[in-house]
Amino acid sequence: MKTTPPLSIAVLGSGKGSNFQAILDAIRAGRLNVRVACVLSDVSDALILERARQAGSPAEFVDASPFKTKLDGAGEQRVLDRLRRHGTDVVVLAGFMRMLKQGLLTTFAGRIVNIHPSLLPAFPGMESWKQALDYGAKVTGCTVHFVDAGMDTGPIILQKTVPILESDTPESLHHRIQEQEHLAFPEALQLIAEGRVRLEGRHTRIRP
Amino acid sequence: MKTTPPLSIAVLGSGKGSNFQAILDAIRAGRLNVRVACVLSDVSDALILERARQAGSPAEFVDASPFKTKLDGAGEQRVLDRLRRHGTDVVVLAGFMRMLKQGLLTTFAGRIVNIHPSLLPAFPGMESWKQALDYGAKVTGCTVHFVDAGMDTGPIILQKTVPILESDTPESLHHRIQEQEHLAFPEALQLIAEGRVRLEGRHTRIRP
Repeated sequence: MKTTPPLSIAVLGSGKGSNFQAILDAIRAGRLNVRVACVLSDVSDALILERARQAGSPAEFVDASPFKTKLDGAGEQRVLDRLRRHGTDVVVLAGFMRMLKQGLLTTFAGRIVNIHPSLLPAFPGMESWKQALDYGAKVTGCTVHFVDAGMDTGPIILQKTVPILESDTPESLHHRIQEQEHLAFPEALQLIAEGRVRLEGRHTRIRP
Repeated sequence: MKTTPPLSIAVLGSGKGSNFQAILDAIRAGRLNVRVACVLSDVSDALILERARQAGSPAEFVDASPFKTKLDGAGEQRVLDRLRRHGTDVVVLAGFMRMLKQGLLTTFAGRIVNIHPSLLPAFPGMESWKQALDYGAKVTGCTVHFVDAGMDTGPIILQKTVPILESDTPESLHHRIQEQEHLAFPEALQLIAEGRVRLEGRHTRIRP
């Protein structure tokens, strides 16, 4: 696995970074041929930055203003500058709570990956585990996908399912979805690192 | 299992009736405590009627006019008459290609069951397996649900998942979904027959 050079990823996150931790763990376990070029956060005291520093990765707060819910304009330019400086093949969104806009989407077309806590196209948007419970679904899951200009609409790389139990609360369901996310995200990134993921329009083709 | 009287079901279908066959098979195998009160079809030469006759169940063509895509007005009244005459606890839609309207929905509120070839709320409507392939989903499945006035929106009883393979065509995916349907439909009906399914608003609660 280590014969090809590692894929260089930049991780963007706004919170705890539990998916980033799963990526770190997979790298250490030899399951993921990835190098963390940098971790960027729009939240100065986000735990994901602390995790990155402890792992020896460059970790930087990036002021995302002037916008509150999207990354555009000057904030986007600051992120783009850092991605270039650190040499980024693929941008990994790990709990990054802003919509990306055209500059990043164009510069990294087909090279931005996100994870979403539902089986898309079901339950896009916020708190998908609550949406699934409110709907009365009996199965949900998580989706790793490339990011496009829509809200959780980009080409899907892989999906993992999670049964919804009679006893589930939003918290218990969210926890079991996150367990699957922590498997799915490194697995999808390894597929990319191995050059096995090809984009065809809105489809991904995965080479066996 | 056979200590309680069987649940009396009327089956409505427009086509081959492969799900009806799966129900018959489950009854014969002793996995489903259900009596087929009657099979009704809006298509006079539908194979589902022939299957019913071979199984010794009352099988009747019902003229669904005056409407082409829904069951309403005089056609609905004809169906209601037959459901009453045959003593129906639960109405089972097995490939019935018309929307039900208010008369049936009110008379059999919470007692009409349908199966849909996707993990609802994803891919409602027609040819859901094609929709899933076109979207680029990596997982789909089937859903057994109570019928309400919407299109594939009613309370879900159970769902089964089907992975989408790189090699899938619409036909191969449809086939694997149908295999899961043939397990899911008898399983859901047996839950109802055992009195384990309770409706709470748009949720079902399944007693273990």
